[in-house]
Amino acid sequence: MKKAGVLFCSVLFCSLLLAQSNKDEKEILAILNQQTVQWNKGDLDNFMSGYWNNDSLMFIGKSGVTYGYANTLSNYKKNYSNKDQMGKLFFEIVKMKRLSPTYYWVLGKWFLKRSVGDIGGSYTLLFGKINGKWKIIADHSS
Amino acid sequence: MKKAGVLFCSVLFCSLLLAQSNKDEKEILAILNQQTVQWNKGDLDNFMSGYWNNDSLMFIGKSGVTYGYANTLSNYKKNYSNKDQMGKLFFEIVKMKRLSPTYYWVLGKWFLKRSVGDIGGSYTLLFGKINGKWKIIADHSS
Repeated sequence: MKKAGVLFCSVLFCSLLLAQSNKDEKEILAILNQQTVQWNKGDLDNFMSGYWNNDSLMFIGKSGVTYGYANTLSNYKKNYSNKDQMGKLFFEIVKMKRLSPTYYWVLGKWFLKRSVGDIGGSYTLLFGKINGKWKIIADHSS
Repeated sequence: MKKAGVLFCSVLFCSLLLAQSNKDEKEILAILNQQTVQWNKGDLDNFMSGYWNNDSLMFIGKSGVTYGYANTLSNYKKNYSNKDQMGKLFFEIVKMKRLSPTYYWVLGKWFLKRSVGDIGGSYTLLFGKINGKWKIIADHSS
């Protein structure tokens, strides 16, 4: 009886964990999709809503490490100053890895179709659950 | 009394967590230092000992995503075929972030001083505790 009880609890725990995991992954995917919609509208301010609005946000790109939401937004606006520069964003999720109830690691590919020349590469994102919402706390794009 | 007990336990728990955290960070730092020693000896096989020896290891670099320990080692050997290519490795840890008892995220800068031209950039590493040992399970270097 005791053993069966343990087994029952384990299965229940696994099921709950899996359900939460699927919920988390759906939420993260929705954020990335929403960012794509905003990018393709040319709306960098709303594109940024996927990121943690905090001075500790980290963006790692070709020019090194940028700290903070304001600086990251400012760099996006500098590097993608108009809709031709921004082009049309496509992304592909390669791997979503649950690290804990409050952290996810996401590997993906990004691609910008542009009249001024296509560009693309890879990104690894660290998502943190902040006040119950998933936010990108570190973005390494190359 | 009950409140004092809870406080005592919280402090104890925090202290244990901090002690473990320091131990983990020391272990991770030792791995990165050891990798530098091996790199600077020109020994890529032993440099690789910091990585998870598994087909699921991920290396994200300028040519995209490479899967597996063997392919990652093979790429290192192709891109750094002699000591002149390898040069002398320096690294700087910018941030070590504990994500759970079994995951750490590390941001750093790397620099190769070489007779054939210096190169450098940033890296973000995902460390996982595998069979009680910290290993790099994903390396994004740019």
